[in-house]
Amino acid sequence: MTTPVDRPHLDTEQFRRQAHEIVDWMADYLRDVGSRPVQPTAEPGAVRAALPAAPPLAGEPFEQIMADFERIIVPGLTHWGHPGFLAYFPANTSPPSILAEMLTATIGAQCMSWNTSPAATELEQVTMEWLRQMAGLSAEFTGVIQDTASTATLVAMVTARDQALGRLDGSTAGRLDLLTAYTTLEANHSVPKGMRLAGIRPGHIRMVETGPENAMRPEALRLMINADRAAGLVPAAVVATVGTTGSTAIDPVPAIAAICREETVWLHVDAAWAGSAAIVPELRWVFDGVDDADSVVFNPHKWLLVNFDCSAYFVKDRAALLGSFGASAEILRTAHDDRVVNYRDWGIQLGRRFRALKLWFVIRSYGVEGLRAMIREHVRLGRLLAEWIEGEPGFELIAPATLGLVVFRYVGHADGKREVRRESFDAMNRTLQNRVNATGRVFITGTSLRGNYVLRVALGHLSTSEADVGAAWELIRTAARAH
Amino acid sequence: MTTPVDRPHLDTEQFRRQAHEIVDWMADYLRDVGSRPVQPTAEPGAVRAALPAAPPLAGEPFEQIMADFERIIVPGLTHWGHPGFLAYFPANTSPPSILAEMLTATIGAQCMSWNTSPAATELEQVTMEWLRQMAGLSAEFTGVIQDTASTATLVAMVTARDQALGRLDGSTAGRLDLLTAYTTLEANHSVPKGMRLAGIRPGHIRMVETGPENAMRPEALRLMINADRAAGLVPAAVVATVGTTGSTAIDPVPAIAAICREETVWLHVDAAWAGSAAIVPELRWVFDGVDDADSVVFNPHKWLLVNFDCSAYFVKDRAALLGSFGASAEILRTAHDDRVVNYRDWGIQLGRRFRALKLWFVIRSYGVEGLRAMIREHVRLGRLLAEWIEGEPGFELIAPATLGLVVFRYVGHADGKREVRRESFDAMNRTLQNRVNATGRVFITGTSLRGNYVLRVALGHLSTSEADVGAAWELIRTAARAH
Repeated sequence: MTTPVDRPHLDTEQFRRQAHEIVDWMADYLRDVGSRPVQPTAEPGAVRAALPAAPPLAGEPFEQIMADFERIIVPGLTHWGHPGFLAYFPANTSPPSILAEMLTATIGAQCMSWNTSPAATELEQVTMEWLRQMAGLSAEFTGVIQDTASTATLVAMVTARDQALGRLDGSTAGRLDLLTAYTTLEANHSVPKGMRLAGIRPGHIRMVETGPENAMRPEALRLMINADRAAGLVPAAVVATVGTTGSTAIDPVPAIAAICREETVWLHVDAAWAGSAAIVPELRWVFDGVDDADSVVFNPHKWLLVNFDCSAYFVKDRAALLGSFGASAEILRTAHDDRVVNYRDWGIQLGRRFRALKLWFVIRSYGVEGLRAMIREHVRLGRLLAEWIEGEPGFELIAPATLGLVVFRYVGHADGKREVRRESFDAMNRTLQNRVNATGRVFITGTSLRGNYVLRVALGHLSTSEADVGAAWELIRTAARAH
Repeated sequence: MTTPVDRPHLDTEQFRRQAHEIVDWMADYLRDVGSRPVQPTAEPGAVRAALPAAPPLAGEPFEQIMADFERIIVPGLTHWGHPGFLAYFPANTSPPSILAEMLTATIGAQCMSWNTSPAATELEQVTMEWLRQMAGLSAEFTGVIQDTASTATLVAMVTARDQALGRLDGSTAGRLDLLTAYTTLEANHSVPKGMRLAGIRPGHIRMVETGPENAMRPEALRLMINADRAAGLVPAAVVATVGTTGSTAIDPVPAIAAICREETVWLHVDAAWAGSAAIVPELRWVFDGVDDADSVVFNPHKWLLVNFDCSAYFVKDRAALLGSFGASAEILRTAHDDRVVNYRDWGIQLGRRFRALKLWFVIRSYGVEGLRAMIREHVRLGRLLAEWIEGEPGFELIAPATLGLVVFRYVGHADGKREVRRESFDAMNRTLQNRVNATGRVFITGTSLRGNYVLRVALGHLSTSEADVGAAWELIRTAARAH
């Protein structure tokens, strides 16, 4: 047998040694990440400048690559697994999930069809069914793993679009430009983006009015749909949010679903972050009415300890989904096609990673009760922080901290600064945020809510303890006092 | 400090032990995968039946999960890294890439914005620039990592669509239903799918005639575009394929590009598999004319030893891309936005994995010369197998094996069987394929080419040697003789 290419890295014993070395780096990193600055301080371009402008012609030794990784890359990372990372939404790793990712990378299975990896397809069926049960969703829903909620929402919008187009005929046949879609300004920016990408005209994407709690007003939705119909337009899709990024607002899904059903409009529920809470019996209310929707997405990679990417998309009308995304090509056809699921027909991508494995490792490692305990603890920590904020002069809680997301702002101390204008409040909170983040001990983000700039603390890390939340709050209070 | 949840799996020392165990499993797997059957033999539903219908309430020990993984999952896998895996396109792992995936999973960085992980963004800029240079693409192209070529092609189609829509006004403003798009029947099924998902009416997706070598006929494209314009339609996009899945056909990009330029139609080049060959100087011709296209995609996860998913999308008009995919939300805005790249605006997904790391590990570990040597060797093996086939009575080489993909069929021995009808040829080849695959030692796929069912051997594994190809050919010949 010839050894045709000089391939030192195919040596599996060398790989074994290197991988063991990397495992020690990984365990040390997980143990010590809290002692690193949560965000890097380097200026844009610093990492780039430290790297060669052209690729190396000859291979380089592993030790050199790892040394550069530690010297150039790691100090330039924002550490999503840092206990002080309270920005955006929680990070997405846990030990069992990382272990599963190691196996996934090694196996390298391409999970487009049942045939291209039967166990991967069937494990996806099983774990998605587990998730459905855990979240208490109707058995009418079938699940499929998408990479992100952005993708899942686009998938929902394309399906909704095709369903609406399918009902047009005569002079309006194929007139995608007549379709309209509805959401609110509080929806994640991937929602209007998904509508746009699906081909809904930007001018036909309606932002439905929200009430004082930042949730969609169903009566406003109904008026908009009526007005659009009267103008000869074709309402195709509504996206309701369960747990907005800005303030945990929950659109009233039961009332919205009733309208959608009456109007034959596809209802997609974006519960990307908050949906995981439904696995906790006393929080199952977050999914009230969702059984009457057409599709729903939530991200185990946000709040169920599964590594990004793993987004759980549930849909009722499987034929509609396959009608939009199914495709057949001779090379993909297999003997078992009538008896199996080919997930390539359930989304955008032909190629698919073996994502079910990490979901399986995580659910089994923690058990449903372990995951519930974690979510309950985050909710408890959120309420605790909210209490501290409410008890602190100069601070305002902006929305109830129902699910571990705490939204607040600083309005100045009782020395008269309270009289400042809105722009000054905004500036004050941006300054406060920058000051807190500059410590390198926590990372919080702000957002715009009903025209005001507000701050957010998103709890959801496996590693964030009450002491960490207390320390973060102390930093915030101290920074405010220094104002 | 309280320990709020009973979290045995957060114990980093326990993780360290488990990860070391898994590394040994990984190295053993890579070493021994060739001794497993390349495909499982179990019937549909077997894996599913072996798993509980409901999730466990309590956590389970690591040992039990790993034992089930080995007992239930592994025997149900199709082994993409098996040296006898010659189906579809090559698998997508290599030791340095797996090492990088281990780090990526541990860090858990979310690479949507520069701010959410500066080093990840800048490493993506650097490695995509390296790739651009390696493939000899014009400096007018800027690269971004997409998950798959399916996604990249959809991204191109949405951009093309929006550019075409932007040129409409008056009575045709917004009339997406007037847009047309062009490709061939030999294009990957993700191409017409991407056009459809972007909202092009199925009836407006044109399959341009191909010549005897299965490549697009530019004069046929021109006639179709003219006819569509005459009918009041709006040609928006052409997708040319460099290296078709079926037969390595290469659409004549220079002539197609000239037409597209003249007609102001977006030209996207799908070089998902074959594009990697462009890194080899004497194979750079595969990209002839591509510098005149608007966008091009090729997959380092197919033929550059990078783990799936990692698809390199290059685009010239960055403003057009950002116009379709850019979006801003207050929570995403950062101080550096005018000086940095925010890749969330370059594609569908807001959330993004840190994919540049494995690209960096692989390019550095092998060096450009190492990767070139690998591709040269696969091309050599493909030519060798093609010679064997041409020299064998009863076999026909269907297309020249220019890039490591060998397409052939069995037409029977010289005992008169050659007279059988086409359907019998097809059946004969399906039988041959099944018989060869049933050995568990190789896995080949077939496809339909100009109406005939043909067999494919796709070379591209790091681990496939001349001896492996010889053994596969011997199996095929033997199975044919047994006919």
